[in-house]
Amino acid sequence: MIPTIAVSMGDPGGIGPEVLVKALGDTTLRARARWVVHGLQTPMTLAARAAGIEPYWSLHASSGPPPGIPGVVLVDHEQLAGPGPWPAHDDSRAGAASLAFLNAAIADAQRPGPERARAIVTGPISKAAWALAGERRFHGHTELLAHRFGDAPHAMMFASPVLNVILVTAHVPLARVPGLLNPQHIARTIRLGHDAMRTLAGSSPRIAVCGVNPHAGESGLLGDEDARLIAPAIESAKREGIDASGPFPADTIFLRALSGSARRFDLVVAMYHDQGLIPLKLLARDTAVNMTVGLPVPRTSPDHGTAFDIAGRNLADPGSMRAACEMAVRLA
Amino acid sequence: MIPTIAVSMGDPGGIGPEVLVKALGDTTLRARARWVVHGLQTPMTLAARAAGIEPYWSLHASSGPPPGIPGVVLVDHEQLAGPGPWPAHDDSRAGAASLAFLNAAIADAQRPGPERARAIVTGPISKAAWALAGERRFHGHTELLAHRFGDAPHAMMFASPVLNVILVTAHVPLARVPGLLNPQHIARTIRLGHDAMRTLAGSSPRIAVCGVNPHAGESGLLGDEDARLIAPAIESAKREGIDASGPFPADTIFLRALSGSARRFDLVVAMYHDQGLIPLKLLARDTAVNMTVGLPVPRTSPDHGTAFDIAGRNLADPGSMRAACEMAVRLA
Repeated sequence: MIPTIAVSMGDPGGIGPEVLVKALGDTTLRARARWVVHGLQTPMTLAARAAGIEPYWSLHASSGPPPGIPGVVLVDHEQLAGPGPWPAHDDSRAGAASLAFLNAAIADAQRPGPERARAIVTGPISKAAWALAGERRFHGHTELLAHRFGDAPHAMMFASPVLNVILVTAHVPLARVPGLLNPQHIARTIRLGHDAMRTLAGSSPRIAVCGVNPHAGESGLLGDEDARLIAPAIESAKREGIDASGPFPADTIFLRALSGSARRFDLVVAMYHDQGLIPLKLLARDTAVNMTVGLPVPRTSPDHGTAFDIAGRNLADPGSMRAACEMAVRLA
Repeated sequence: MIPTIAVSMGDPGGIGPEVLVKALGDTTLRARARWVVHGLQTPMTLAARAAGIEPYWSLHASSGPPPGIPGVVLVDHEQLAGPGPWPAHDDSRAGAASLAFLNAAIADAQRPGPERARAIVTGPISKAAWALAGERRFHGHTELLAHRFGDAPHAMMFASPVLNVILVTAHVPLARVPGLLNPQHIARTIRLGHDAMRTLAGSSPRIAVCGVNPHAGESGLLGDEDARLIAPAIESAKREGIDASGPFPADTIFLRALSGSARRFDLVVAMYHDQGLIPLKLLARDTAVNMTVGLPVPRTSPDHGTAFDIAGRNLADPGSMRAACEMAVRLA
């Protein structure tokens, strides 16, 4: 049976509505799930008109496809709309709306019974707009989702045709990174990456683990965390049958994890945000999907922001959102 | 008048002799300087024979070109050679030899008078071999050179056709990086990069400065070093007329510094080793030149190691060594 996938439209003043309308405009992709979109009818209709796409969704209250039947159901949170168009900047009303869409998508994933969503796709939001709307606890989607799912162990992962990366630490100051590393946490991240890649690729991935220090510590001359914390985590993962190796110097290991005939690794475990995202953003550009793995329900998202500067102009590339939707189907 | 450039051959058991023989086999490059090579005749001759290159150097004691006349003079440190061939692994005798070559090249740069070397090119060495030879004080060429030149302020810089990067901190554990950042040191590195790029390119470079935290600290949510330490350094550089901007999130700024029509920046200032070297090694591969800037005499080096695994087999690519020699001529 095809899965139900819950989608939050993201900030209504950003490019979320546009990339969503364009991505699900692909009939093949649309047929692979029942998509329940939490958003607003007006921005979706405007985006469809600008792109020359015939609206293909049904409204929730009327004739939406029931569970198990493919198609797109729009849950129009029209009570959140106000007078005039949505502003293409950080706005408290828009922040409240994107929060409401996300919370409704989470509720779909926590609902018992056949309507339960098996994956969540999130459109781009503005964290500053969330703050203006009074939501300051969470740094972004990942942290809010983890909280709603009982603080389950989770990790940020990025999948793309050229490179796959999972992060041991993410949105923390660099100075806090070494103190947050411990063998249990690193081994758990290796395991989460292993499980996600196995689901995506159907086979056990070959995993490279980065060191945290230059040259992976160079036998202790440049720091001891690599040997003291990362190496034992790799050993622990190996004992569970996971094909993990390292710690490798981060400045050369990514070359061995790129797609192509010489690819030696399917996934790189990075110790901190920039270590993983510098190579990912350089090489994958608009093809990367941001994923939260480890939660009871996987979440995917395009790897770009609200792009207020081009919102409403039919200029946005839906490639990353389409990849996020495809990835959600595969993980669901 | 053409400059004299001192060259150290590097570890005699590695690929140093081979890439050097091949690089200076280019007659155009050879004609641009007087090259004084500190090394050993036997590995050079063997490499030339394997590559089908007619030996083109004269021995120092005999008929070398005098200052101002182009050509290659080999200073054969034959007293360091022992019985049998040089081993293709970390070896104490080879470490002592590569140290002696380097010290002789430094002496050439510190010599008064017309014979003084205006730049140093260093072949790849093994730090483990240095340690076996009793030299444990210096992490590598950069640190040893800085010490010999009175601990002058200096920085590691990497130049390549695709991307140029300079490092504020280099061979230190990641945990020490935040504590080593201060506005004076960062501003000095910006200035060193500015001066080197102006010498190389002939015009004032546009410089992007990375933040140290994810998203460059995201307005203080993810760390305050970006606003507290890096931003004032950029302001200070600007007041000196340097075209510097930032701090920028490191995971996206390198895209704007790549060669091509959309290049917005000529040089990126990275706060730590992997932040700068992950993108450089991914993109520049074998074309990068490692430079030490700020010392009284500039030093360049190929961006690869001894490659013991392919030494003596005529398989080494001299591209990076050729680029290092060309860069030395331009900086001299």
